[in-house]
Amino acid sequence: MEIAKPYLLFLGDVQDQLAAKTAMGIVDWRPEWCVGQLRLAGCKADTGLPDLTIAEAVAKGAKTMVVGVANAGGVLPDHWVTEIVAALEAGLDVATGLHKRLNAIPSIAGAATKHHRKLHDVRFSDVSFATGKGTKRPGLRLLTVGTDCSVGKKYTALALEREMHKRGLSCDFRATGQTGVLISGRGLALDAVVADFISGAAEWLSPDNDPRHWDVIEGQGSLFHPSFAGVTLGLLHGAQPDAFIVCHEPTRATMRGVKHPLPSIAEVIERTVLEGALTNPQIACTGIAINTEHLSEEVAMSYLKETAEAHGLPCVDPIRTGVAPLVDELIRRYGR
Amino acid sequence: MEIAKPYLLFLGDVQDQLAAKTAMGIVDWRPEWCVGQLRLAGCKADTGLPDLTIAEAVAKGAKTMVVGVANAGGVLPDHWVTEIVAALEAGLDVATGLHKRLNAIPSIAGAATKHHRKLHDVRFSDVSFATGKGTKRPGLRLLTVGTDCSVGKKYTALALEREMHKRGLSCDFRATGQTGVLISGRGLALDAVVADFISGAAEWLSPDNDPRHWDVIEGQGSLFHPSFAGVTLGLLHGAQPDAFIVCHEPTRATMRGVKHPLPSIAEVIERTVLEGALTNPQIACTGIAINTEHLSEEVAMSYLKETAEAHGLPCVDPIRTGVAPLVDELIRRYGR
Repeated sequence: MEIAKPYLLFLGDVQDQLAAKTAMGIVDWRPEWCVGQLRLAGCKADTGLPDLTIAEAVAKGAKTMVVGVANAGGVLPDHWVTEIVAALEAGLDVATGLHKRLNAIPSIAGAATKHHRKLHDVRFSDVSFATGKGTKRPGLRLLTVGTDCSVGKKYTALALEREMHKRGLSCDFRATGQTGVLISGRGLALDAVVADFISGAAEWLSPDNDPRHWDVIEGQGSLFHPSFAGVTLGLLHGAQPDAFIVCHEPTRATMRGVKHPLPSIAEVIERTVLEGALTNPQIACTGIAINTEHLSEEVAMSYLKETAEAHGLPCVDPIRTGVAPLVDELIRRYGR
Repeated sequence: MEIAKPYLLFLGDVQDQLAAKTAMGIVDWRPEWCVGQLRLAGCKADTGLPDLTIAEAVAKGAKTMVVGVANAGGVLPDHWVTEIVAALEAGLDVATGLHKRLNAIPSIAGAATKHHRKLHDVRFSDVSFATGKGTKRPGLRLLTVGTDCSVGKKYTALALEREMHKRGLSCDFRATGQTGVLISGRGLALDAVVADFISGAAEWLSPDNDPRHWDVIEGQGSLFHPSFAGVTLGLLHGAQPDAFIVCHEPTRATMRGVKHPLPSIAEVIERTVLEGALTNPQIACTGIAINTEHLSEEVAMSYLKETAEAHGLPCVDPIRTGVAPLVDELIRRYGR
């Protein structure tokens, strides 16, 4: 699945900035792909991009309208449906990460068929995957793993890709979640794949490549999360990373959505090496990424320093300090 | 999903006994649910049950026609479709483990709607599961795990259920694969569940129960299998077993479908305890089940004896020796 660029970002009439998180992510990471935003009357979110009508966006070359907002209760309001149909009629494809399939809405499905436009429901996968083979593939791979869900695995991977490109390294961000797919215009929401094909889908996502090329693969869940560890393990086996970065949020008391305590960074390193060795015996932890947003500057900087010393690995906050030390370490270990 | 009993077993016109493996499994484990078999001209398989027409089966009280055969190439032959439609018209539900959904065949879907019959495609799941919670549930649980796929996990679980019933223990076999679902008339093909919900589906499959009741849960894959370990881990976390049995086939050189060597029984015990402790810190291996079909009686018996001694656990071949020592051990550890 490759989503045609550039994008018009649809914000609907959401009531706060948080509901437009996906659109904000696209603007943060792929500003060059965004021609503008489409907001309906009463919208309280703003990406800072120019407000465009559908016709103006088409005139500026837009190829896809991305519904970059979360819809309350999973219901697509009728007046959003009207705009989506109008976009299809004007010649745009439409991509969403909504809970409801666009194809399940007859007026949208009908307009897409009539105007030969593509609908991208990135929460769903219709690809037929093979089961994982576990055979080592050429190319270098890095996977971001976590002590928990939502600790910065996607952000860290995107920051690594940006920094690696800046250094002239050959690399690609490989999205495994719906927001990542919309940000990168391709990839796969791995949690939507049928269980038998998790590792096969991860293999498909990161195919054979040049021996010096890096795939920077967005991690999912945590090996220690009782809801999602199966996805995490299947992704680890299919990704067969050479290097991994542990992502962590130090103020969180229990894992997201359950009552279990977070594992330590050391436990995640040990378990990831133990399990990852099945498909790549050379797997190694090459750094740590901490989300220190809830710490003061002083506490954050000393936490990063202590964590680096405790594990003998570079430790950064991708937002506060950037990820340059993580890329230095990759070059030191694997060359360029 | 609960499949209505008793069954008429449809064998079609398959060319050997192996193609009727599912039907044979149902007859082996649930003879009391089978009123007879329906074979078409040229069929070379035989379950030993009386041959019945659809009308005769209905007269004997049959509620569901089970298509208990594998169809070559995943294609449902037209003359099978004719029989399935006839069964629906005669008032039977139809259950299959085929690769193709019955509902995707218009004449079958139409007949089911018209005659208000149920179609059970056990390879597919339409249930909306919650994500796993990881909270310990009341009741005792046993999971069969394996060094590989297809090493006797289903057979061992069914044999344990039968032996436990004989001893007057309260227990239920919980199917997690399509054949197991058809054999037990309920359950879930776990490998068909969307990845995000593996452990949640396993929790759904084995709900809260009486503190002395055993769920004997059919395992899937292997924590060491690069294609399927994600499913295995999600099932382990959702099943949260108190006890597990390791199943093994000692003559196999590489894991099914891949080039990886099999792990040792000791490695499987250690890894299962390590990972399973996340949702049940009391998890323990209570026995070993070996498929010795490729060994002579003498070699098999000494292999079982040596394996038992090496691990300090009862070790049986469910077919050659029965599983009584495994149930003895459960009673010794957990009472009755």
